[in-house]
Amino acid sequence: MTVSELAAHVGSRVTGDGSVLIAGVGSLDSAGEGDISYVEDEKFFEAANQSRASCLIVPEKVALDFPCQIQVKNPKLAFALIAEVLHPPKQRAPEIHSSAVIAKDAKIGSDVFIGAFVCVGENSTIGDRTQIRAGAKIGDNVTVGTDCVIHPNVFIEDGMVIGDRVILHAGVVIGADGFGYVRGDMGYHKFPQIGTVIIEDDVELGANTTVDRGALGRTRIGKGTKLDNLVHVGHNCDIGERVVIAAQTGISGSVTIEDDCVIGGQVGFGDHVLVQSGAVIGSKAGVLPGKIVRPGVWWGIPIQPLDEYKRLNAHISRLPHVREQIKDLTERIKTLEQQLLKRDE
Amino acid sequence: MTVSELAAHVGSRVTGDGSVLIAGVGSLDSAGEGDISYVEDEKFFEAANQSRASCLIVPEKVALDFPCQIQVKNPKLAFALIAEVLHPPKQRAPEIHSSAVIAKDAKIGSDVFIGAFVCVGENSTIGDRTQIRAGAKIGDNVTVGTDCVIHPNVFIEDGMVIGDRVILHAGVVIGADGFGYVRGDMGYHKFPQIGTVIIEDDVELGANTTVDRGALGRTRIGKGTKLDNLVHVGHNCDIGERVVIAAQTGISGSVTIEDDCVIGGQVGFGDHVLVQSGAVIGSKAGVLPGKIVRPGVWWGIPIQPLDEYKRLNAHISRLPHVREQIKDLTERIKTLEQQLLKRDE
Amino acid sequence: MTVSELAAHVGSRVTGDGSVLIAGVGSLDSAGEGDISYVEDEKFFEAANQSRASCLIVPEKVALDFPCQIQVKNPKLAFALIAEVLHPPKQRAPEIHSSAVIAKDAKIGSDVFIGAFVCVGENSTIGDRTQIRAGAKIGDNVTVGTDCVIHPNVFIEDGMVIGDRVILHAGVVIGADGFGYVRGDMGYHKFPQIGTVIIEDDVELGANTTVDRGALGRTRIGKGTKLDNLVHVGHNCDIGERVVIAAQTGISGSVTIEDDCVIGGQVGFGDHVLVQSGAVIGSKAGVLPGKIVRPGVWWGIPIQPLDEYKRLNAHISRLPHVREQIKDLTERIKTLEQQLLKRDE
Repeated sequence: MTVSELAAHVGSRVTGDGSVLIAGVGSLDSAGEGDISYVEDEKFFEAANQSRASCLIVPEKVALDFPCQIQVKNPKLAFALIAEVLHPPKQRAPEIHSSAVIAKDAKIGSDVFIGAFVCVGENSTIGDRTQIRAGAKIGDNVTVGTDCVIHPNVFIEDGMVIGDRVILHAGVVIGADGFGYVRGDMGYHKFPQIGTVIIEDDVELGANTTVDRGALGRTRIGKGTKLDNLVHVGHNCDIGERVVIAAQTGISGSVTIEDDCVIGGQVGFGDHVLVQSGAVIGSKAGVLPGKIVRPGVWWGIPIQPLDEYKRLNAHISRLPHVREQIKDLTERIKTLEQQLLKRDE
Repeated sequence: MTVSELAAHVGSRVTGDGSVLIAGVGSLDSAGEGDISYVEDEKFFEAANQSRASCLIVPEKVALDFPCQIQVKNPKLAFALIAEVLHPPKQRAPEIHSSAVIAKDAKIGSDVFIGAFVCVGENSTIGDRTQIRAGAKIGDNVTVGTDCVIHPNVFIEDGMVIGDRVILHAGVVIGADGFGYVRGDMGYHKFPQIGTVIIEDDVELGANTTVDRGALGRTRIGKGTKLDNLVHVGHNCDIGERVVIAAQTGISGSVTIEDDCVIGGQVGFGDHVLVQSGAVIGSKAGVLPGKIVRPGVWWGIPIQPLDEYKRLNAHISRLPHVREQIKDLTERIKTLEQQLLKRDE
Repeated sequence: MTVSELAAHVGSRVTGDGSVLIAGVGSLDSAGEGDISYVEDEKFFEAANQSRASCLIVPEKVALDFPCQIQVKNPKLAFALIAEVLHPPKQRAPEIHSSAVIAKDAKIGSDVFIGAFVCVGENSTIGDRTQIRAGAKIGDNVTVGTDCVIHPNVFIEDGMVIGDRVILHAGVVIGADGFGYVRGDMGYHKFPQIGTVIIEDDVELGANTTVDRGALGRTRIGKGTKLDNLVHVGHNCDIGERVVIAAQTGISGSVTIEDDCVIGGQVGFGDHVLVQSGAVIGSKAGVLPGKIVRPGVWWGIPIQPLDEYKRLNAHISRLPHVREQIKDLTERIKTLEQQLLKRDE
């Protein structure tokens, strides 16, 4: 595509020769002829001028000394939008591999790709243009929407519901039993784990992430939400829309995370937590069961507002000084006491 | 089943019409006609009275204003026991899928279900009524007991031993090499990882959980123990009976956890830890190598008795006040010093 | 093999009968006739003398009262080297299972084992003597070197590069999309995730570990590096040679870990961290984004030098005493103030 076409795609125009052809994207230092790159941060403007890219996306009101530029408000976003055009997700040619085991009454949409060693169970539905890659196992009565990519070795349990344009990376497990037991005299009895999982449109789940089925109700991942690798979502969680959760975070049962929250990596949630819309929780934080997390930035174990966390941390690092202060005060008091004593003599 | 039959199953009787038919279980608000639900906590009695369930399981000595009740000592346990009857685990009809690759000398019990793309290796034994779902791989010389459910894409390495009524959720890996190396001049050499894993009866392991084989000896998960998703169990660990371990906890090599311990999520154990029977360790705790954890409730990094942890945390949050106190004392001492000095003049 | 042969293999000689035959390795208490064991730590010398092993590897200059010994500088290393000889990794007879789906133009080396339900994609290369076990999925344009073991249900995405003698344990995912999005008006757009992963020679990755592809560049795991189970490596990370990383550690995007670092379990790295060669980071530590970690031992959240961490921890545990001290000082000052006041009257 020409840079003019790409500029139009992101609602802007080209400064330079609009007929330059672009075939791919690259970083400032990896991009070569035929590539487009972007720069956002002032400290990389120097490097940008040295780039061998054929075109650069740059911030508005910035005049780089570069022959071919596209000025936009949000260069990184424009770069992502242009990359979607230049590097669309691999579209496998429609095919149902001869080795796949597909139930007779499964409803397979048009232009679907089903790879080798895939299973699709009874009464399940696969939407148009969805790709189910090698070794993925889809249970009975599952609904998978349109334009999804189900990567190799994913497992979706019976009865689960997956929306449109969902991406499940390799090894994802949707709908395993939640972790709920009741202690009896002889050991643990399973609390019924017979609910479902609903993954809404435009969700992406990272490799080996697990989302448990509801105990009696449902576990939900809302529209446009993105989870990184190795995340655990417990039974009956309700994760809202456009939530971002980084790798290895663990979410106990019945946690609600409202729309537009941002959760770091390795965070742990006790059960029945409510995270209100707009909250940001830093990596490695711990949230006690039942806690209500209000909008704002939170940090630490257990979580505190970031400012408070920083303040307490500063106090902690001052502890050696506190010790010195107390020593000094103790000496001075001793001196005062001795002086008074002396006078009394 | 009738409510009378269900009441008898949990050793109680019905208050109301014992002939009411029950087909399923539900929560107080999701249960409808034909469902049974339960209430335990006084604060939900109001909601219970509003429930559309056909029968409620309620605590002894509580008289709810509800037409059909079963009074028991432990309503949640009774509910779990009744759910086991009404929603038994899916029993797949005995079948060996034509695509499965089963070694000639493997011993397959009666009424076994083996799904598509399953492998069972040489000289392995699968017990009666066990279900091995699509894509699970069972190595050579493996023993799997009776009435197990091995979910999709599980892997069990050569020589491992699985008891009766064991549930392995999707993506579980049993018997990968433990993490042991010896540094030589040129890099790391693998310390031999040639031991085994023994999973005893009634164990349940969550999705994508990994249990490494012993280095020279064995790794054991005791009878009735339950592990959540994404748990790591290192080589030569000895986990006792009826232990409960929540998601994403990591257990280094040669850790012993005795019977009836309860371990939270995202806990980390250094190697050679001994957790004594009855200990409870809170989520996100860290246990230093070689530590002996006595019965009681433990918390924090590194772990401390919960009381002590709380006390220290209270001290930490008082640090800003400590600073004020020290400022005040310093001022007062200064004043005293000046007063004494003045008198000396 | 005879003990003399084994002793020669580790550059030493036998004290005792060199013709004794050894078939296996064992620990001091599990080893029996025909086994070799080792002892390193003085506190186990007593146990060593009681061992029923046919030969012991012992430290230089230590004279154990044992009939057959091999003295070496590093007994554990010698034991590992001897175990490599006595228990070589299972060498499966060359075979391409009839169920495997291998692209016509894939290049399969000599003496390769390919198990049931394996896929090898178009234009991929599998090196000599490599074993690809049941259910592993190799994408298109993948290079796997010689003498590798790819365990069951591993997934390697299109275009990834795996060196020689690499071991990927079950459930490993190489090359899933990294976690990068740009927020637009309507939600998140994927930042392009079109880079690659390079796994160098002699790397071993634990079960269910995930290594994401580079966004635009590459993610690299250097020669001889070992990762435990359930580790997450984000896009564009550069992990050096002979690095050891314990279970469940999570590494955000664009982190560099230089050669010979040792990283504990459940450590979390923010993005763009640089860990310099020779640094050791304790388990459960947290490293803030952009941090440069110098050589030395680091601990805590956020990480500090171990000494400092210990010192601050000691200060924290002294807080109850600090409170007492402040109370005492306050009392004494009050007394002094009253004494002075009295004199003024």
